[in-house]
Amino acid sequence: MTGTLYGLGLGPGDPELLTLKAHRILKSCPVVAYPAPDTGPSFARQIVAPYLTAAQLEVPIIVPMRVERFPAQEIYSQAAEVLARHLDAGADVAVLCEGDPFFYGSFMYLFERLADRYPTEVVPGVSSMMAAAAGLGRPLAARNDVLTVLPGPLDDAILADRIAASGAVAIIKIGRHFSRIRSLIADLGLTAQAGYVERVSLAEQRLMPLAEVAEDVAPYFSMILIYKGAETWHPALASRLGAEQGA
Amino acid sequence: MTGTLYGLGLGPGDPELLTLKAHRILKSCPVVAYPAPDTGPSFARQIVAPYLTAAQLEVPIIVPMRVERFPAQEIYSQAAEVLARHLDAGADVAVLCEGDPFFYGSFMYLFERLADRYPTEVVPGVSSMMAAAAGLGRPLAARNDVLTVLPGPLDDAILADRIAASGAVAIIKIGRHFSRIRSLIADLGLTAQAGYVERVSLAEQRLMPLAEVAEDVAPYFSMILIYKGAETWHPALASRLGAEQGA
Repeated sequence: MTGTLYGLGLGPGDPELLTLKAHRILKSCPVVAYPAPDTGPSFARQIVAPYLTAAQLEVPIIVPMRVERFPAQEIYSQAAEVLARHLDAGADVAVLCEGDPFFYGSFMYLFERLADRYPTEVVPGVSSMMAAAAGLGRPLAARNDVLTVLPGPLDDAILADRIAASGAVAIIKIGRHFSRIRSLIADLGLTAQAGYVERVSLAEQRLMPLAEVAEDVAPYFSMILIYKGAETWHPALASRLGAEQGA
Repeated sequence: MTGTLYGLGLGPGDPELLTLKAHRILKSCPVVAYPAPDTGPSFARQIVAPYLTAAQLEVPIIVPMRVERFPAQEIYSQAAEVLARHLDAGADVAVLCEGDPFFYGSFMYLFERLADRYPTEVVPGVSSMMAAAAGLGRPLAARNDVLTVLPGPLDDAILADRIAASGAVAIIKIGRHFSRIRSLIADLGLTAQAGYVERVSLAEQRLMPLAEVAEDVAPYFSMILIYKGAETWHPALASRLGAEQGA
């Protein structure tokens, strides 16, 4: 009897945004694998740190941080073979995935190597995109809006075209592209409808209108949401911004 | 002291896909409100039925089913005043939201009426879009894909243009538009990359390649996902389809 491979969506960062299902499966798995940078802690592991026990075997998958974040496929081939040995031995393996496993995630690289060899289940998670809209206090999309999700590294022409053609937009993977994207949104006359969100759902989260952002770069875990149907913000956010401006 | 208004994302239908946070808040609220059709059960209430207790006061918000599903705003104005009376009396109120509250949901109509009067928190949920990708065993979107979410009632020309311009597409609110949309996808030569998902995560869910769907109409809780990067399916789904074809 081989073990089962689970891809567990962990949500945007708050450990309480795990689903009941991901929480149950996580606790039941003797082997827990997660992506980790070559230096520093694994964000995925940090999310579930409150739930891990010393009895679980941890398998970090070291993914060197690079600008484009499309790591070499050998890393996943090697990791898949390590996990295969545990699955062959009958152990269930949980692979931790920030957000949702199949929403711009790296779990697909393990899934395509292992799902035809072992029973595999993907447990969906809360996307940071939905958490960002919740924090800003405005719909991600509504009614018959077209919602477009755009990775920040795309060319200006593509970004401008798709932003103009959509009622609602989420721009992800911003990082070093932040300044360029902000200019582009200003050129489209949409700054007042754009919100900026960083490390959403964590204690250190930052949420604000794009117009209020002082920096010219953004961390990897940040996004911009544009909702053309409203220029309003969550009242708690609006009152905090008002207090800052009055101070 | 007034109560707090919570918009609780419940996920796609499996009660275990609630987040730990939504589960905790749901149990703590003395008042639980939810959309309900004029006849038949409320889907949102069904999702959390295992967690409700007799001590909780239930407030159904009757939303008559109509083809376009954009109900009259008076319904929400009246419901907001009912909830306001409970909030004024100091009771916390949980509003149940299928999927995520701000992803094409109706919670926005209560939020815009109540959030500036009472402390309000929106708890994001797992979208059926993510659950559908998990079930099909293929990414919703990956790398630098453009992902476009398209409501089915949109015109053919808009749908065709956006589908052609995106690496990944989710078509929601299909219902009576199913046959038209399927023809449109065939005309674009993308049928082999399209998956169909109905009532995802529930016991009666149906997942299959679009090419395998025999019917000409689809229920409201269905969607089509197109992922241009792959024509493969979850191995469990592929083997089930193979067995059906062999039978």
